[in-house]
Amino acid sequence: MPKPIITFLTDFGLQDGYVASMKGVVLKRCPDAVIVDITHLIPPHDIRWGAYILSTCHLDFPSGTIHVAVVDPGVGTSRKPIAIRTCESIYIGPDNGIFSFILEKSALLEARLLQNPDYFREKVTPTFHGRDIFAPVAAHLASGASFAALGPEVQPIRAPWTRPKIEPGTIVGEVLGADRFGNIITNITRNDLPHNVHPETLEIRIEDKEVPVFATTYGSVPLGAPLALIGSSDHLEISINQGNAARHYRIRPGSPVTIRHPDNASF
Amino acid sequence: MPKPIITFLTDFGLQDGYVASMKGVVLKRCPDAVIVDITHLIPPHDIRWGAYILSTCHLDFPSGTIHVAVVDPGVGTSRKPIAIRTCESIYIGPDNGIFSFILEKSALLEARLLQNPDYFREKVTPTFHGRDIFAPVAAHLASGASFAALGPEVQPIRAPWTRPKIEPGTIVGEVLGADRFGNIITNITRNDLPHNVHPETLEIRIEDKEVPVFATTYGSVPLGAPLALIGSSDHLEISINQGNAARHYRIRPGSPVTIRHPDNASF
Amino acid sequence: MPKPIITFLTDFGLQDGYVASMKGVVLKRCPDAVIVDITHLIPPHDIRWGAYILSTCHLDFPSGTIHVAVVDPGVGTSRKPIAIRTCESIYIGPDNGIFSFILEKSALLEARLLQNPDYFREKVTPTFHGRDIFAPVAAHLASGASFAALGPEVQPIRAPWTRPKIEPGTIVGEVLGADRFGNIITNITRNDLPHNVHPETLEIRIEDKEVPVFATTYGSVPLGAPLALIGSSDHLEISINQGNAARHYRIRPGSPVTIRHPDNASF
Repeated sequence: MPKPIITFLTDFGLQDGYVASMKGVVLKRCPDAVIVDITHLIPPHDIRWGAYILSTCHLDFPSGTIHVAVVDPGVGTSRKPIAIRTCESIYIGPDNGIFSFILEKSALLEARLLQNPDYFREKVTPTFHGRDIFAPVAAHLASGASFAALGPEVQPIRAPWTRPKIEPGTIVGEVLGADRFGNIITNITRNDLPHNVHPETLEIRIEDKEVPVFATTYGSVPLGAPLALIGSSDHLEISINQGNAARHYRIRPGSPVTIRHPDNASF
Repeated sequence: MPKPIITFLTDFGLQDGYVASMKGVVLKRCPDAVIVDITHLIPPHDIRWGAYILSTCHLDFPSGTIHVAVVDPGVGTSRKPIAIRTCESIYIGPDNGIFSFILEKSALLEARLLQNPDYFREKVTPTFHGRDIFAPVAAHLASGASFAALGPEVQPIRAPWTRPKIEPGTIVGEVLGADRFGNIITNITRNDLPHNVHPETLEIRIEDKEVPVFATTYGSVPLGAPLALIGSSDHLEISINQGNAARHYRIRPGSPVTIRHPDNASF
Repeated sequence: MPKPIITFLTDFGLQDGYVASMKGVVLKRCPDAVIVDITHLIPPHDIRWGAYILSTCHLDFPSGTIHVAVVDPGVGTSRKPIAIRTCESIYIGPDNGIFSFILEKSALLEARLLQNPDYFREKVTPTFHGRDIFAPVAAHLASGASFAALGPEVQPIRAPWTRPKIEPGTIVGEVLGADRFGNIITNITRNDLPHNVHPETLEIRIEDKEVPVFATTYGSVPLGAPLALIGSSDHLEISINQGNAARHYRIRPGSPVTIRHPDNASF
């Protein structure tokens, strides 16, 4: 039988002992677990970017994988700890919208409030639920514990920033963030684009600046030239070939991105 | 039987091949080992911070885990390579004080000088004992080698910076460093605080500035407000809710932190 | 039977989901694989530094390890995806010179163009061959797939920057990059140095500045003093004891490094 896989996505950084504590907690309770880091470098408290990054890779893992996501500015306050079950996987973390992109595309089977202390670390502190609640719950589920025993059913929060606004002839999206290469990622996806027009005919603006070319690979424009493309996660990206578009366009999370059909045809 | 766990804590960074070399050396000698990174981002040569980070997470791992800690400005000089055994775990690294926080709380059973070349890499270089001595010793112990065969018994160094000075009515501690979120970590722990007074009545100063509030979670003060709290590692932390206290207070490792009882009652 | 080991070296960074996608792809196709990160912090598009870092650690892994290296500025253009087999290991990545240092020292047994889509991810995008081609090929090989079935044989590219120019009495090398500690790494190796002279008598210059001392450990010069030494990877390094030589000498990849024998004896 394949070993259970537990992934971690957090804003804890890699410089402290926080991530290792969570892994130790897992291995103490489920020695067979295969642990994979998604990332721990989500910008502190940036729930939206954490939600996006999780959505780019979770389906590459085997079904049944347990994904623990902890970007949790409200730790210790009244926000709820939850676990979510979809057809594909299990997701564990704070109920603050971090699973919003997942719930856009995957059918929710069941969500539970994490209330059963049998699945927690012996001592639960107010500041580190990643170690004290989320990691041990993941380990117990990986060891075969019952999902229904976690706590009562709940409805998880769905955040508003997962989808662009689509109006006749116009899509108004926003910047989610930028990746390591400075590629600007938006909340506009391949499916939002009109199917009956060539992407090359679309007018793309970020803040007030036009992006001149819509292409399929970075290398199809000269070095240093900007382009828009559908990236590997199916989101619209704005990039500069071997350059840093985020610095060039000086964008911030939330900056507007607009797509217009030049002859104003409806999408 | 559960697989042996080997953790690594270093100041090697993540950009080079040093960490991978150590892991390859382990897997060559102990293919079953489960390897976990604690961190490789200890500030270069900061033994004290490395010692602190190790102390925050080592007990979250299963007992018997082998912890390799390499913050080693003296590599290649006369400082000794050692292994330490406590009731809980095994610790391997340079004898420069990096295990001082561990030895504050865990009873030392046995410490050995690493002198037996049968447990080393075939070729030992003067600049990379992590790969050439510490990793292979860890792998051999994980594969069942005898602790006593490592070399003669030694007394490990215990550094002076693990404990604050406690005087009547006053605790004088110091800053150990700051975590990813800018939370300032001190060498004052929960047990150092007086048990018969409410923490809220204590006067806390860092350098010359007073920290106004003693609370239990970051979220219990307004956004951007400073507070002192006992963090998840049981150390006194000075934080700013969703802000960066290390930048705000401009502290450095070693900066003084003072706690006074306002009516001068003895602690 | 020991489990198959797959390593990853990329310039993808650690902040996105790219690395996790590759690991998920591997675990879906080869649940038994042990995955080890070499690094994901190669400077973006710096093929030469990626090639160097891989060469510093690949032989520390068990023979048969599969190394996936993706520094790939030409992704989606005409550069070829390849796999290389040597006596020691298997190497998978773009054919852009990233395996040049490996091929300096290890005999090439066989190189194949990655052309067989049975070994690819179901959907291959133009921008992410790490996830869509290289990771699944690695997983299939780890699961026992035939190397010859990957595609036709090819001759891999060998880049010119692996070796210094050796002239009578002079070695002219260049800077490959700098490690986390600011140690400057050159393409001059232990074997390039003359065997009949003491290294201490050699005159070493980086750009126009002389490096005063050739020593064997960082600690053999005073704090803050520069030195040249043969580092743990057998390359000539220029360092500052507990300081940052890369900042001090303001070097860049490609900066010239010259070694002269003072009495002009030939090497």
